[in-house]
Amino acid sequence: MSDLDALSAAYQNLKSRNQNIDMTRGKPAAAQLDLAAAMFELVGNDDCKGADGTDYRNYGILAGIPEARALFAELMETTPDLVIAGGNGSLQMMYDVLQGAVVFGVPGGDGPWRDAKFLCPVPGYDRHFAICERLGIGMIPVEMNDDGPDMDAVEALVAEDASIKGIWCVPKYSNPTGAVYSDAVVDRLAAMTCAAPDFRIMWDNAYVVHHLTGEIAAVKNIQKAAEAVGNPDRILTFVSTSKISLAGAGVAAMAASKVNVEDALERMFYSSIGPDKINQLRHVRFFKNKAGIEAHMLKHAAIIGPKFAAVEKAMSKAFDGTGLATWTKPAGGYFVSVDLMDGCAAETVKLCADAGVKLTASGACFPYGNDPRDRNIRLAPTMPTVDELERAMEVFCTTAKMVCLRKAAG
Amino acid sequence: MSDLDALSAAYQNLKSRNQNIDMTRGKPAAAQLDLAAAMFELVGNDDCKGADGTDYRNYGILAGIPEARALFAELMETTPDLVIAGGNGSLQMMYDVLQGAVVFGVPGGDGPWRDAKFLCPVPGYDRHFAICERLGIGMIPVEMNDDGPDMDAVEALVAEDASIKGIWCVPKYSNPTGAVYSDAVVDRLAAMTCAAPDFRIMWDNAYVVHHLTGEIAAVKNIQKAAEAVGNPDRILTFVSTSKISLAGAGVAAMAASKVNVEDALERMFYSSIGPDKINQLRHVRFFKNKAGIEAHMLKHAAIIGPKFAAVEKAMSKAFDGTGLATWTKPAGGYFVSVDLMDGCAAETVKLCADAGVKLTASGACFPYGNDPRDRNIRLAPTMPTVDELERAMEVFCTTAKMVCLRKAAG
Repeated sequence: MSDLDALSAAYQNLKSRNQNIDMTRGKPAAAQLDLAAAMFELVGNDDCKGADGTDYRNYGILAGIPEARALFAELMETTPDLVIAGGNGSLQMMYDVLQGAVVFGVPGGDGPWRDAKFLCPVPGYDRHFAICERLGIGMIPVEMNDDGPDMDAVEALVAEDASIKGIWCVPKYSNPTGAVYSDAVVDRLAAMTCAAPDFRIMWDNAYVVHHLTGEIAAVKNIQKAAEAVGNPDRILTFVSTSKISLAGAGVAAMAASKVNVEDALERMFYSSIGPDKINQLRHVRFFKNKAGIEAHMLKHAAIIGPKFAAVEKAMSKAFDGTGLATWTKPAGGYFVSVDLMDGCAAETVKLCADAGVKLTASGACFPYGNDPRDRNIRLAPTMPTVDELERAMEVFCTTAKMVCLRKAAG
Repeated sequence: MSDLDALSAAYQNLKSRNQNIDMTRGKPAAAQLDLAAAMFELVGNDDCKGADGTDYRNYGILAGIPEARALFAELMETTPDLVIAGGNGSLQMMYDVLQGAVVFGVPGGDGPWRDAKFLCPVPGYDRHFAICERLGIGMIPVEMNDDGPDMDAVEALVAEDASIKGIWCVPKYSNPTGAVYSDAVVDRLAAMTCAAPDFRIMWDNAYVVHHLTGEIAAVKNIQKAAEAVGNPDRILTFVSTSKISLAGAGVAAMAASKVNVEDALERMFYSSIGPDKINQLRHVRFFKNKAGIEAHMLKHAAIIGPKFAAVEKAMSKAFDGTGLATWTKPAGGYFVSVDLMDGCAAETVKLCADAGVKLTASGACFPYGNDPRDRNIRLAPTMPTVDELERAMEVFCTTAKMVCLRKAAG
């Protein structure tokens, strides 16, 4: 029996097991959410005032409670006055910034963005790309390297084309490759000459403390780097506790220059009665400070580290020396990015689904869902149990290898 | 000593007391927020799953948890599938609808709203008008009567002008007059011929259960009325628990036709990771059903009813038979609307502030802050204590009377 015949037989056998495992999204597992159990109990009705006596149950405080702004300021390496602590999703804040740009423009620009374009390092985060697509912001893919986007390409593009208004960046443990931006890339992004005076770097620091191993990545503070070269308003930084505390009941924050913070607050005035300050207070009491967050993240790493190890073990066993696939070995974040032979991703995702293992749609990590080489697959190992994950990876590796060999056989 | 001299002396005397009382906004008092004290304890980490086992701590469920949609459906007299349970503010939902209309358009229309206008019953809610102003939606004031807007004027305007895309309505205990829309007004709004095919009624049912007395107002279901005449997509209804549970940590909801709900969910997909489902669950467990909400609102009425009575008593004592002022005697809601002699509102608000009593800015209840007769003042009695309120009303009545008499004296 040929390798391909053996794989096909193995695939049919796996398919007959009628499994149902979901690896589509980067969702924390229940065991991770349990780590924040104490948070539910930390704020009571008699105990929900600020240091100055402000009743956090009532309306108001658009920029978030001072305690939460201080916590995020420490995490984001800035000062509390330059932080907005918001609702339960940084996606909302990012969407709001870009919709605001399209409707009103941003400081330093000449009014609403028209026919704007964004640079999109690929593979990247599908929800970022969806925002652009929805708002009619054109997307230009640029290559993602191990130390950040291809800066030669980025610099050339932004210098020439004033319609390029920004770039999406996940600087630490990037989604999905796990790449960590180097200091050189940060400096070049901060200092590069942009034809658009209102160019914005959407710095989605979603995995700022989401380490998987003892190898703790540090990314240079791009806001400070931009200030140093006279571009303070270029940077908008986002974080959230969705993957720190509770995915659906966390707190998101934005940090930026004074001008950009004021612009965001002006926009929020019209739409917001203020964030849920009680939930912000829960977070402040639970984490206390950055050290508290970092200690908490070690517990997350203890839960999901073995899952990433299971992915690596399975990939290595199946593909080492085959030349059929390359994949990332992230030191943090939520994903493993796999590149198969060209033309094999969509078929692999489809056949995995047929065998009961749901993966992120192929192409999802590219603008308009279009992976030009049809080779990239994002694996999201956090949600299943280790046991489920091992079974899922058996399906994935068998299927991917079978698809590649078929393709190679023509 | 003339009446005016006596009032001026009294004003100077009151001013010398250095009071500091804030009646600017319709905020619930701490005692009202205390009524929801048990809510803080109702959801714990081991107890936050839905009936179908869904973990409400995690991402997702854009339309809100089924239990919350069911609760709001009962409150809003519709079915759960036509309800979106959202975040902590209905203002956000209303803003999102109108910004969506400006950027994308709404179902039944021909694309983004351009040079759109809205009808604004006056006096009305300043935050409604602020949304329009921000989004460049022109505002046309129409007179507010005791049973709703002047429908002859409304019908004439919307029939002729296709750029008039909607109307703001607070149908029950309207802000600020306390007016309750009659069945006839509801029917005319639902059935009127609109030149704009995508006309929308922003039905902000902010005070749906906010009764002050035993006189419980019922407003006819406008969604059903609109469906009956073939205009199901005309209506967007909003409520929130901000003035039922916690002002800053409540839950808002929107109800509409299937087409409009799908449109809203499509918009939310790009910006939301789902609402805070844990907080929704707290609300469901606390209130259980509409009867639970209604029972809870009786406790609110017991707290704020005496405050409205204090306003009425002071106004009646100061102004009965003078011809200097008229004012509303609401059976619900959060405000008393006062009309002084023409030309006396701004001066009264200013002099009250000088004497330590902050009132809502004069003109706030009109588009662009422009009260053409400079006579309307909104009183917000809920936040101060009864004692503070009595002192504040002494300042207000003395000041208003003095300003009116001065004006009358030329």
